[in-house]
Amino acid sequence: MNFTGANILSVDQFERTDIETIFTVADSMQPYALRQKVTRVLEGAILGNMFFEPSTRTRVSFGCAFNLLGGEVRETTGFQSSAIAKGESLYDTARVLSGYSDVICMRHPAEGSVAEFAEASRVPVINGGDGANEHPSQALLDLYTIQKELRDRGRSLDGLRIAMIGDLKYGRTVHSLIRLLCLFDKLHVVLVSPEELAMPEMYVEPLRQAGHTVTVSSDLANSIGGVDIVYSTRIQEERFASKEEADIYRGRFRLNQAIYTQYCEPNTVIMHPLPRDSRSDANELDNDLNQNPNLAIFRQADNGLLVRMALFALILDVADQVDHYSRPVTWYHRRGV
Amino acid sequence: MNFTGANILSVDQFERTDIETIFTVADSMQPYALRQKVTRVLEGAILGNMFFEPSTRTRVSFGCAFNLLGGEVRETTGFQSSAIAKGESLYDTARVLSGYSDVICMRHPAEGSVAEFAEASRVPVINGGDGANEHPSQALLDLYTIQKELRDRGRSLDGLRIAMIGDLKYGRTVHSLIRLLCLFDKLHVVLVSPEELAMPEMYVEPLRQAGHTVTVSSDLANSIGGVDIVYSTRIQEERFASKEEADIYRGRFRLNQAIYTQYCEPNTVIMHPLPRDSRSDANELDNDLNQNPNLAIFRQADNGLLVRMALFALILDVADQVDHYSRPVTWYHRRGV
Amino acid sequence: MNFTGANILSVDQFERTDIETIFTVADSMQPYALRQKVTRVLEGAILGNMFFEPSTRTRVSFGCAFNLLGGEVRETTGFQSSAIAKGESLYDTARVLSGYSDVICMRHPAEGSVAEFAEASRVPVINGGDGANEHPSQALLDLYTIQKELRDRGRSLDGLRIAMIGDLKYGRTVHSLIRLLCLFDKLHVVLVSPEELAMPEMYVEPLRQAGHTVTVSSDLANSIGGVDIVYSTRIQEERFASKEEADIYRGRFRLNQAIYTQYCEPNTVIMHPLPRDSRSDANELDNDLNQNPNLAIFRQADNGLLVRMALFALILDVADQVDHYSRPVTWYHRRGV
Repeated sequence: MNFTGANILSVDQFERTDIETIFTVADSMQPYALRQKVTRVLEGAILGNMFFEPSTRTRVSFGCAFNLLGGEVRETTGFQSSAIAKGESLYDTARVLSGYSDVICMRHPAEGSVAEFAEASRVPVINGGDGANEHPSQALLDLYTIQKELRDRGRSLDGLRIAMIGDLKYGRTVHSLIRLLCLFDKLHVVLVSPEELAMPEMYVEPLRQAGHTVTVSSDLANSIGGVDIVYSTRIQEERFASKEEADIYRGRFRLNQAIYTQYCEPNTVIMHPLPRDSRSDANELDNDLNQNPNLAIFRQADNGLLVRMALFALILDVADQVDHYSRPVTWYHRRGV
Repeated sequence: MNFTGANILSVDQFERTDIETIFTVADSMQPYALRQKVTRVLEGAILGNMFFEPSTRTRVSFGCAFNLLGGEVRETTGFQSSAIAKGESLYDTARVLSGYSDVICMRHPAEGSVAEFAEASRVPVINGGDGANEHPSQALLDLYTIQKELRDRGRSLDGLRIAMIGDLKYGRTVHSLIRLLCLFDKLHVVLVSPEELAMPEMYVEPLRQAGHTVTVSSDLANSIGGVDIVYSTRIQEERFASKEEADIYRGRFRLNQAIYTQYCEPNTVIMHPLPRDSRSDANELDNDLNQNPNLAIFRQADNGLLVRMALFALILDVADQVDHYSRPVTWYHRRGV
Repeated sequence: MNFTGANILSVDQFERTDIETIFTVADSMQPYALRQKVTRVLEGAILGNMFFEPSTRTRVSFGCAFNLLGGEVRETTGFQSSAIAKGESLYDTARVLSGYSDVICMRHPAEGSVAEFAEASRVPVINGGDGANEHPSQALLDLYTIQKELRDRGRSLDGLRIAMIGDLKYGRTVHSLIRLLCLFDKLHVVLVSPEELAMPEMYVEPLRQAGHTVTVSSDLANSIGGVDIVYSTRIQEERFASKEEADIYRGRFRLNQAIYTQYCEPNTVIMHPLPRDSRSDANELDNDLNQNPNLAIFRQADNGLLVRMALFALILDVADQVDHYSRPVTWYHRRGV
């Protein structure tokens, strides 16, 4: 695809070479994110960071990514302060707001809303999440993290072995990630969930069609050996038909250090889309994994910044000028990743 | 008036030459708003964008206008996060907040509040809307739009023929616009509303006194021929004494393409203060006008940015330095207005 | 202490020389706050201004302080938009958010939360208030104000005579201020409150131990003569056991110009942590003091900006580079303090 001036709305718009382009640019952003250098390439540009549904981490990540390239950010958060509540159409909102900035990042609770908005916008639009539908920068940062973690271990996306765990029926992030993974070769995918929260066939079928190996299970312990990546997601109790049903699975999809040590290969990478529920009754990742160097969940967040910087640089066509506008950092900077 | 360091509180403070000054500076901002150039003239300056009542579009427009001049923006939105709720006086709020920034834009639900705030402020204050009272930058952008649209059609503000439609009793924007129009010569003003929502005499009388022609009507179709501008506003049902009363007028002030074609002169400009209610039962502008090149409602929003940039440049006395601090744009920029 | 990269969590971490360092740097920030010069020393740096509890004045003050040094600010306000509400631990929040910025300012309703956050953060953290516990920049700006006001009157912190008035039991600001005052010599402290809102012994005892003079009273008029500083705070009626109890003290801790003239020495400085309750039944400072040149409450707010600029400059190790990155101001600037 031609990134210049493009909207980023769905993972479906990417081919494998597009992914590789994004990741190469993301790699080049590392010195700026780590504050080894500063760039002012977008000095004077404005991001409209329009979050019609709140999401602190995604909003701040997009905003900081734009700031790190030297640009300014104007924001809105929530519905109450919006003309949309007075009956304004997405068309009108888009026509007006797109007159103010150089690029817009938008989150909105309604599926398809961001694409409709982008249709009327006069500047490029990045989908920051439209309900249950798409959140492409999350899928990209997940895939980018997998690639980096594998690279450190001498492996690559082709031949990846990954276990996805938790609510695979409603989880937007695993659906998008699966669709991106289909661009690569010879995957072994293990899908681990309660039966009623299984991955829908519409996502599984294309994997099988493309010749990848797919295993389905509802047993965590015997599914996480022999994989490179364990990708855990939240199971919300209210997804089950009854409390009794929920009780059957209680704690059975929770990963902790003891289970990891007993069942996983050494150096198996642990991922999660975040936020992680750290309350004691949560069905996710235990806090006792925090010291495990293979816990990559915070590296995922750090990588999100790099991927978002890359998207802005590509859309605004400055990827090859970033270094030209670079300077040394003169202040105390943080203690590495 | 002397703009340097001045507050912008009311349309009443402007003479005709002041309007012309603002519009000339606004014209000069066009290349920056269109991203043909970038200026950093206000680099290091801070706008305090204090919205004690939410208004996404006005807040973002002021903020982007300041960013486009190179300045920074600090904001607040809503009451809940404010010391005002703990009994702090506007005097105290103004004394404190005006120590932080170089200029303040303030919106507040209480009439007169912004003027009271400005009295105690140590930096210039722009009224971003104080309840039903004033919203001078909206009136200025409306008048600026009228002038630009007329200029493109070989006409000028003197001799303007305008129809104002809808709720003329409570509509803040039409009241302010009327007061600005009084500065020009030989107007023909047609006031179209339900009888109980007619323009108050306090606004009509000065028009007649100044020798302008005023026509009052409650019939849309026969009022919109023979004018240069149709300025439509919302009628809220709750303004009527009863549902029966509202039903009488239902749909009778709605403008669509068929009515426009049948009754308006060619190239009649259509305006609206926005947001437009696009729901099917709204008494405003139909979506089937969206492709009509005379629909100027989004050009109004774009012009708002120019007018607000002009106000900042004049108040902070940098209007003649903007070009001196200009640079070429190095990133992909949007596809024109 | 070594400021570079340090967290600012509690007033207890400062020694007298640290205070003197902060105040010297704060003094050097004055020309920038007054817009006699602009500095871009932190251009490219990002402050994460994380207010999980709203506080307009503190949030905007920190944000503007960072902008005045040339840096960018990304913010969050309130709980609703936060993953914390979904069970995310402070550890996770800190790990993620600290990957985005160069320094974080955090306010949070829970005591000890900011220290817990700082423990996991990868960048320095400033406590912007953690419930009833600490708000160190407020204590520093109070002490800085006292020092400046005394200096103008030919006196110093050693030998200070101060009366603290109001709710001394629950008032976070007076507790922190007392702890800082203990670093100086030969104080005379007068504690004026209703008996049931007296200063807790844990704060009074160290003062007496260090050889300072402490007087306790519940009579305002006879306590405010013979002091350099009157520091007034709010008494909230709901703090009393009963309405009858509250009625006993009604209005007895209110300071107005008549009482000031009758009982205070000339040039006694009046302070208050703000916001001041200006409603007629408030037990605080009367509006008729507003013209009194010794009312220092707005100078306190202005000094807050200087102290926060100093903290950022010290933590990020740029205090001695601020002037190197300075420029003249080219726009209209405000009418002095």
